[in-house]
Amino acid sequence: MTKEELFENIKRKKSFLCIGLDTDIEKIPRHLLKTSDPLFEFNKQIIDATHHLCVSYKPNTAFYESMGAAGWESLEKTIHYLKDFKDIFTIADAKRGDIGNTSSMYARSFFGLMDFDALTVAPYMGEDSVKPFLNYEGKWVILLALTSNTGSADFQSNPKIKTGSGFLFEEVLETSKNWGNADNLMYVVGGTQAAMFADIRKIVPESFLLVPGVGAQGGSLEEVAKYGMNSQCGLLVNSSRNIIYAGNGDDFAQQARAEAEKMQKEMQGLLTSYLK
Amino acid sequence: MTKEELFENIKRKKSFLCIGLDTDIEKIPRHLLKTSDPLFEFNKQIIDATHHLCVSYKPNTAFYESMGAAGWESLEKTIHYLKDFKDIFTIADAKRGDIGNTSSMYARSFFGLMDFDALTVAPYMGEDSVKPFLNYEGKWVILLALTSNTGSADFQSNPKIKTGSGFLFEEVLETSKNWGNADNLMYVVGGTQAAMFADIRKIVPESFLLVPGVGAQGGSLEEVAKYGMNSQCGLLVNSSRNIIYAGNGDDFAQQARAEAEKMQKEMQGLLTSYLK
Repeated sequence: MTKEELFENIKRKKSFLCIGLDTDIEKIPRHLLKTSDPLFEFNKQIIDATHHLCVSYKPNTAFYESMGAAGWESLEKTIHYLKDFKDIFTIADAKRGDIGNTSSMYARSFFGLMDFDALTVAPYMGEDSVKPFLNYEGKWVILLALTSNTGSADFQSNPKIKTGSGFLFEEVLETSKNWGNADNLMYVVGGTQAAMFADIRKIVPESFLLVPGVGAQGGSLEEVAKYGMNSQCGLLVNSSRNIIYAGNGDDFAQQARAEAEKMQKEMQGLLTSYLK
Repeated sequence: MTKEELFENIKRKKSFLCIGLDTDIEKIPRHLLKTSDPLFEFNKQIIDATHHLCVSYKPNTAFYESMGAAGWESLEKTIHYLKDFKDIFTIADAKRGDIGNTSSMYARSFFGLMDFDALTVAPYMGEDSVKPFLNYEGKWVILLALTSNTGSADFQSNPKIKTGSGFLFEEVLETSKNWGNADNLMYVVGGTQAAMFADIRKIVPESFLLVPGVGAQGGSLEEVAKYGMNSQCGLLVNSSRNIIYAGNGDDFAQQARAEAEKMQKEMQGLLTSYLK
């Protein structure tokens, strides 16, 4: 999916919501455990109930790997199911990154075998760990820049670490512009870091930002939109637990839809206010 | 496995060799493709032929994931097979790392479900992304510090990035000492970076270093031993392609053994020379 197609979907759906499929066998409704593939069954019902309210889904691979080969099969079935929704941008939140020939193997997995649109990648190992993913025509790297967790202060925004560009995460943003551009690179910026969005937009004005941490982790959607939105929206705001675990009974999917609808409505207002 | 047990194995086997099971379906001998699980069959024959010459095996997850759920099954069978060798330290080279609750899921996968002794982890997301792995009694985190690839110069050892401790990788080493100690933390330091080993030993004198990049990537085993060895050896030197793809016919496992034996003999000499 191109940036323009993604923006068209955002305008049409009046939403820049990404739903995180952090599907945990210990948290899904108990009645699903009787099905042959509980993780997939949960995802399918969530997707059916919410796909008109969001523009993206983001399974986090950790939750599938924790189930072993069976979990990996659930992930494969989920991406296969998602591919039928042509207006959905699919993100594998895997935070991979390795030496060049090994990153190529990860690319084969997430872009070849599973056909995700995008993969989250950790920047620590530098250019040759990221490039193999960028070599896939039509696919996206979403590079970790400033994450939503407290540990982001250890290196990413540690004021004791000085670079030519400011904080370490700003050096990552600057350096990555030599590797790709706003048509194949996005960045993870935590919604808990709203104060940083204006500075980030100076470095990557055109790029999409994938924003976790709004909701359960405490970030404000209004502030993210105010400081982060650009002329093509430029934001995918992720919500996982708040939506997918909104309910725990037979009606969990309707409960998830209700939560997603609240966020979509708020986003509709923010698009009216802040889309430049 | 404790540090002391690992050192005992090193002394007894006169080897600090780790064999990287970067098992690529496109590179293994063709005759194995007829078996029901070619990746596992390859690994099993390599392990049977070489386990007396090394102290550790390190499957890189990328190669298994590239085969989907079937590859994940091959990985599970491989770790299960390895657990029968009580003198082998098992490393999942997965370079994971995510926000706390997600890292816990990865820990469940690699330490719970699969029972690896150690997991490689990327440091970019800081303390709460690493801690969940350290909470597993008897398990190890191997933190990326200074990797063997050219991209390591982008951030890890970029002289334009200044920290209280020197290079970024030195800040990572220093900071990580607040998270764990030489009994549950090791570090990845590329064998191509021999000039840095003396400086690294000043920061983490007691810790084991996992050293890739000797051989195919150009690092010198002699220099690594000279500058990196400590009183408990403190080194696991990894070789993957040079050993596992030494041969390509029916006798591939014997060829691998011959290559592993060459390294073991060299290591035996280096232990005599440099073990302090």
